[in-house]
Amino acid sequence: MIIVLKAGTKADKIKNLMKSLESQGVDVSHFSDVKRDFLGLIGDTSVINTDQIRAHHEVEQIIRVEEPFKRANRKFHPENSIITIGDETIGGERLGIIAGPCSVESEEQIIGIAKRVKKAGANFLRGGAFKPRTSPYSFQGLELEGLRMLQAAKKETGLPIVTELMSVKWIDEFEESVDVIQIGARNMQNFDLLKEVGKTKTPVLLKRGLSATYKEWLMSAEYIMSEGNENVILCERGIRTFEPETRNTLDIQAVPVIKKLSHLPIIIDPSHAGGESYLVEAGAKSGIVAGADGLMIEVHNDPENAWSDGEQCLTPDEFAGLMEKAHKLASFEGRSIQKAAESLTR
Amino acid sequence: MIIVLKAGTKADKIKNLMKSLESQGVDVSHFSDVKRDFLGLIGDTSVINTDQIRAHHEVEQIIRVEEPFKRANRKFHPENSIITIGDETIGGERLGIIAGPCSVESEEQIIGIAKRVKKAGANFLRGGAFKPRTSPYSFQGLELEGLRMLQAAKKETGLPIVTELMSVKWIDEFEESVDVIQIGARNMQNFDLLKEVGKTKTPVLLKRGLSATYKEWLMSAEYIMSEGNENVILCERGIRTFEPETRNTLDIQAVPVIKKLSHLPIIIDPSHAGGESYLVEAGAKSGIVAGADGLMIEVHNDPENAWSDGEQCLTPDEFAGLMEKAHKLASFEGRSIQKAAESLTR
Amino acid sequence: MIIVLKAGTKADKIKNLMKSLESQGVDVSHFSDVKRDFLGLIGDTSVINTDQIRAHHEVEQIIRVEEPFKRANRKFHPENSIITIGDETIGGERLGIIAGPCSVESEEQIIGIAKRVKKAGANFLRGGAFKPRTSPYSFQGLELEGLRMLQAAKKETGLPIVTELMSVKWIDEFEESVDVIQIGARNMQNFDLLKEVGKTKTPVLLKRGLSATYKEWLMSAEYIMSEGNENVILCERGIRTFEPETRNTLDIQAVPVIKKLSHLPIIIDPSHAGGESYLVEAGAKSGIVAGADGLMIEVHNDPENAWSDGEQCLTPDEFAGLMEKAHKLASFEGRSIQKAAESLTR
Amino acid sequence: MIIVLKAGTKADKIKNLMKSLESQGVDVSHFSDVKRDFLGLIGDTSVINTDQIRAHHEVEQIIRVEEPFKRANRKFHPENSIITIGDETIGGERLGIIAGPCSVESEEQIIGIAKRVKKAGANFLRGGAFKPRTSPYSFQGLELEGLRMLQAAKKETGLPIVTELMSVKWIDEFEESVDVIQIGARNMQNFDLLKEVGKTKTPVLLKRGLSATYKEWLMSAEYIMSEGNENVILCERGIRTFEPETRNTLDIQAVPVIKKLSHLPIIIDPSHAGGESYLVEAGAKSGIVAGADGLMIEVHNDPENAWSDGEQCLTPDEFAGLMEKAHKLASFEGRSIQKAAESLTR
Repeated sequence: MIIVLKAGTKADKIKNLMKSLESQGVDVSHFSDVKRDFLGLIGDTSVINTDQIRAHHEVEQIIRVEEPFKRANRKFHPENSIITIGDETIGGERLGIIAGPCSVESEEQIIGIAKRVKKAGANFLRGGAFKPRTSPYSFQGLELEGLRMLQAAKKETGLPIVTELMSVKWIDEFEESVDVIQIGARNMQNFDLLKEVGKTKTPVLLKRGLSATYKEWLMSAEYIMSEGNENVILCERGIRTFEPETRNTLDIQAVPVIKKLSHLPIIIDPSHAGGESYLVEAGAKSGIVAGADGLMIEVHNDPENAWSDGEQCLTPDEFAGLMEKAHKLASFEGRSIQKAAESLTR
Repeated sequence: MIIVLKAGTKADKIKNLMKSLESQGVDVSHFSDVKRDFLGLIGDTSVINTDQIRAHHEVEQIIRVEEPFKRANRKFHPENSIITIGDETIGGERLGIIAGPCSVESEEQIIGIAKRVKKAGANFLRGGAFKPRTSPYSFQGLELEGLRMLQAAKKETGLPIVTELMSVKWIDEFEESVDVIQIGARNMQNFDLLKEVGKTKTPVLLKRGLSATYKEWLMSAEYIMSEGNENVILCERGIRTFEPETRNTLDIQAVPVIKKLSHLPIIIDPSHAGGESYLVEAGAKSGIVAGADGLMIEVHNDPENAWSDGEQCLTPDEFAGLMEKAHKLASFEGRSIQKAAESLTR
Repeated sequence: MIIVLKAGTKADKIKNLMKSLESQGVDVSHFSDVKRDFLGLIGDTSVINTDQIRAHHEVEQIIRVEEPFKRANRKFHPENSIITIGDETIGGERLGIIAGPCSVESEEQIIGIAKRVKKAGANFLRGGAFKPRTSPYSFQGLELEGLRMLQAAKKETGLPIVTELMSVKWIDEFEESVDVIQIGARNMQNFDLLKEVGKTKTPVLLKRGLSATYKEWLMSAEYIMSEGNENVILCERGIRTFEPETRNTLDIQAVPVIKKLSHLPIIIDPSHAGGESYLVEAGAKSGIVAGADGLMIEVHNDPENAWSDGEQCLTPDEFAGLMEKAHKLASFEGRSIQKAAESLTR
Repeated sequence: MIIVLKAGTKADKIKNLMKSLESQGVDVSHFSDVKRDFLGLIGDTSVINTDQIRAHHEVEQIIRVEEPFKRANRKFHPENSIITIGDETIGGERLGIIAGPCSVESEEQIIGIAKRVKKAGANFLRGGAFKPRTSPYSFQGLELEGLRMLQAAKKETGLPIVTELMSVKWIDEFEESVDVIQIGARNMQNFDLLKEVGKTKTPVLLKRGLSATYKEWLMSAEYIMSEGNENVILCERGIRTFEPETRNTLDIQAVPVIKKLSHLPIIIDPSHAGGESYLVEAGAKSGIVAGADGLMIEVHNDPENAWSDGEQCLTPDEFAGLMEKAHKLASFEGRSIQKAAESLTR
C-alpha cells in the first residue's frame, strides 16, 4: 500500500501518521521526490483501516498494490482448488454440469427432470426450494417441502443437490440435506449469511452480485473462507447493464480474470445471464472455451408452465442436444464432461 | 396488464391462455387489430405470475400498465404517510434530521456527538453498532455493546436512535432498544430480513440498493408492509455509476419520482452519496429544495480518527453551520427544522 | 505520476525505463521499499504516453497523481472563469438562464417563445436547428432555415442564441450567426468537432456525454481550449443509469466536483435530465443551491404539439412560475437572476 | 405500436388523437377494456414522432411492438448479409480475421506486421492512421501519411485495409484508399459522419458505442443504410461497466441477439474489450463459438514500445498460436479460417 501525501505536508504530521500506521502492525517507509512525500506500507495491509487513513487531511490518495483478499488469492495458493462434493468434484479436469428447474414444483417433476438431465450428462441437480422474488406476491418456493423433494430426487438418481439458502434460519436443514449451498446474487453482500455458511463444511456456490466487481465478489468469498469453509465455487450469472434485450449481460471475461486472481473454481450460468432459452447455447459454449469449471443450466420438462423463469429454461431434449456439443468442446479444450452413456450405467 | 401475442397465433391457443389467466383470478378481454391479438387483464394483476406467461411461445410481450406494488402505492393512499417515532415524526411539515457518527466507538464519543448534533438541530441520533464491511478483516462494529451505548446517549439527550440491523438474529434486541431499524443498501433485497422487520412494529429506514431501480426499491418496501409494518421511510443514499471521483451518485430526482409513485416519506443521505465531506452541503440543500422529508448526515467529533468513513464526516461545527442554512432553506420551501435554541430548552 | 514496478524487477530494466521516460521530457526519481521499486515522475506528465509505459512487462501499476488536463484545471487558474457573450456573462454572480423550445419549428413560434421567456427572466434563447436523433426517420431539424429563424428572434428580443452544431460543415454559418455553440452529449468525444470549434472564438456549451466521467468531460473541454478557445461552459444534462422511470439521472454532485477541479462555469439542464416536465422544478432548484452558474430549460408554447421532446417542456406560464422561485433561491445563495420587470424595460 | 391512454380520457380527445395519428400515414384502431382505452397503430410506424405523441396529456404509455429499424431488420431480409470486400467477404462461411497494430507507426512496421499476420491466417489488415484519444496531448496518429503506409502494406501483401475515419473532412481520401471504413465507438452516434459514409459505397465497420444498447447500435447502422450504403459490419468491442479490472466488458450475447434482430454480419474485437493481452484468447474463442462472423485483433511486433494500447497487443507469435486454435474451433462450428499455408501461396 502506498500513501501519497499532499504537497507541503509538514514533517511532524508525517511522523504522527507513520506512528499511527506502525501501531496497526505494518512497517512504514518514507520516500519523497521534489514535490511530494510518500509512505510505503509493508506487511499484512489487509487489516489496515483505509477509511481512517483517508480521513487525514494530509492524505491525497491511497494506492492498494496488494489485493485485499488473502485466502481466495492465487498468490498464496498457486494451484487450482478442487472442491469435492460426494463422488464428484468441481475445479478439476471434469466440468461440473448442474442442471434442473428454476423451482421445485412437485416430487414427480423434480425426479422426472433429474433423470433426464442425468441421462444427458449432468452430474449435479439444481432446483429452488426457497426463491428470492422481487415481489412479495410472487411464488416464494415450496420451502422445506421442496428440500424434501430434492432429496427424493437425489435418492432416485444419485445426483448431489445444489439449492439456494436465503435465511440463516434454515442453515441446519441445509447442512443436513443439501450438497452445495447456493448464495444468490442479491445476497452476495449479506455478510451475516456469508459468515454463517462459512461456519459449515458444506461447499458454497457464490453467485456474483448484480453489479458487483470481481474484487467485491472475491471479498465475499473471503468472508466465507475466513470462517473456515474454503469450499467456495464462484458462479458468473450475468451483470446488470443498460441493455434491455437481455436479462443480464454475461461477462465471459470473468473466467480468465478470476482464474488469474484466485485459485477458486468458477462456473457459468448462461440461463440467468441471458434470460431467454435461445441465448443459453452461446453462453454455455463461451464458458467452456473461456476455461470455466462448469455450467449451471435451467431445464424444465414443460417450460410454458414453469412456475418461474420458464422463458429461460431448456427442455430436456434441448439440454441433451447442448450437452452433445459441450462434450466435444470440452475435449477440444482438454477437459471432459461425463458421457450420457456413462451416467446411465452408474 | 396487456399481453401482446405473436402474429398468427391460433384461436385455440388464445382461448387456452385466456382460461389459464382467468384461473388466476383476473378478468381477461381479447382485442385484435389487423396484425395481432392482445389480451387485457383487469383486476389484481399483482398476483399474476408473469414469468409463467412469458414462457408461452405465443406471447410476444407483456406490458404492465399498473405498478406491481399496492400498499406503497400513492394511488390507493393519496395523502402522505407520516411516520411517528416517539415524539417525533418523519413525513410531515418538519424535516427529520438524523445525525451522528458512522460507527459507535465509545460511550463518551456517542454521548458527546449526540449532545452536539441535538444542539445544532438534529432530532434523531444515528450510529452504527453492526457494520456491513466489504472486507471480513475490517472493523465490524461494537455490536450489542454499541447498542447499549446508543441507549445511554438516548437517555442523556432524548434523541431517538436510528441504527442498522444486519441479521435476523438480533431482531429482538433491536425491537427493544432501537427507535428506527435501518436496512442497509446491501440488504435491500435480503427478503428474509425484510419479512422479519415487517413482523415488528418498529419504523424501518430502507436504504436504496447500490444499483436498484425505484420500483425494485418500492417492492422491497412492499415486502415489509405486506407483513403488517407500514412504517417505512425510504432513504436515497446515492447509486453506483461510472464516476470514480465520488463514492456514489446522488440521485436527486428520486425525491419527486418517489413522491409521485408512493405515499411513503423519503429522506436523503448526502454523506454516503458523495463520500467526501465537501460534497455534503450541496447534497443536503438539494434534498431540501427537491422536497425530501429529512436528511441523514454523518457527524464525528474527530473525523481524522473515525473508525470508519471519516472522509465523509462533518465536524459538529460544520454540521451546525449547515443546519443554519438548512433551517432557512426549509422555511423557504414551507417546511421547518427544529431550531437550535428550541432543542436546547427541551 | 508514480510508476509501481513488479517485485523483482532487475536494475538494468529499471535504468532503461528511466532513460526512456526522461527522453520524454520529465524528471524521474527512483525509490524502493523492501518489496518493490517505484519511479516518481516530475514535470509536465500530461504529455507522457501512459499506454506505452503500461505495456512494459515490468510495470505493475501507474498512478496519476496530477490531473491530465491543464488549461481547464483550477490549480493553474484559481479564480472562476467568466465567459462573456455579448452583454451577458456566464460564470459570474448573475445566473445564465437559457430557455426555449427543443426544436425551432417556425419563425412565429420561436419569436413568440423568445418574448415569453425573456419576460420571465431568461437571458439566452435556445432552440435546435440541427437535431441529433436516434432514428434517421425522425425530424432532423430545419437546419439553416432554423438558424435564420433564431436570428430573427434575436433581432426581436436581443437574446443571444444557443444552438447545437453537429457537423464541421456548418462551422462558418455558426460562427457568423450563433452566440454560443452547443456540443451535444453524443458528440462529447467527437474530437474532430471539438478541435474545429476550438479554432473559433465563439463560446462553446459542452454537454456531458451519456456515460462520461468528469475527467473525460474535462479532457473534452481541454481539446477545445488547447486549440485556443478558452470560452467553454460545461452543462450537466443527466447520465445514463439503470433507472427506467427517468430519461437520465441528474448528477447534482457534478457541480461541486467540477468547481473543485476546474475554473470553468457549469450549468444544469433539468429538462433533458428528467425527461418529464414535472421533474424540472426539483432539478432546477437543486442546481441553484448546489452552486451552478445557470440553467438550460426547455419551454414550448404548445408542448402537446412540439415536434420533439414535448414531454419535458414547460409552458411559458410554468416557466414564469419557476423563475419566480428561482429568483428568490438565487438571492438566498448570494447570486441573482435577471428580474422579469428588468428584462421588459431593456 | 400501441398507445395506452390514461383512465378516463374523454371520447373527443381520443378522436382528435386518432385523427392526428392518421394524418401521419398509419391506420389506427381503437380498443378498450373496462378501465382504459388503447390505440393500435398499423403501417410504417418508424416515421411516427413518438415524442409528439408522448407529450399529449392523455397518453399514459407508448409500446413499440415493431423494431424502429427497417433496412437492418432481419424480418425484411431473412438471409444473412454477406459483405464483399475485394476478393474477401465477411458474413459468409469463412470468418473475417482483421489483424494489425493499434496505430500505424512507420512503413517498415506496418509492412512487417502485415506479412506476419497474413502468414498466420489474417485476411484483413488493421492499423490506425487517425486516432481518437481522450487527451489532446496524446499521439493523434500519422494521419494521411499513415494511410499511405497502409496502402504500401496492402501493395506488399494484398490484404485489404480497415482503418478508422474520424472526420468527414477526409472522406474522399478514405473512399480512394481504404477497403473498410471503421467508425469508432465514440462516434457511433456522430450522425453527421454516419450519413456521410452512408453516401459512399465503401463497406463500413461500425463499432458499438461505450454504453449503447443493441437497438441504438442498429439505428446507427440504419443511418448509414438509409443513405444507400448497405455494406455495414457490426463490431462488438466491449461495453463500459463498473468493473475496473478490465478495460471494457465483452458482451458475448451481442452475437446471438444481433443475429436474431438483424441480417448484418457481426464481429468481435477481444483486444479492446479486455484491454490486456492475456484476455484476448478467451474473448476470441468465445466469439467463434457464439457465432460471430469474424475477429479484430491487435498485433504488434514490439508491444512494449507500441505508441498506443501496447498492453492489449499480441505479438505475431502469440497471434499465430491463437489462429491455430481458432482454425480448429471454426471447423468445429462449421465455419472456416484461411489457413496459414493457403495464405502464403496466394
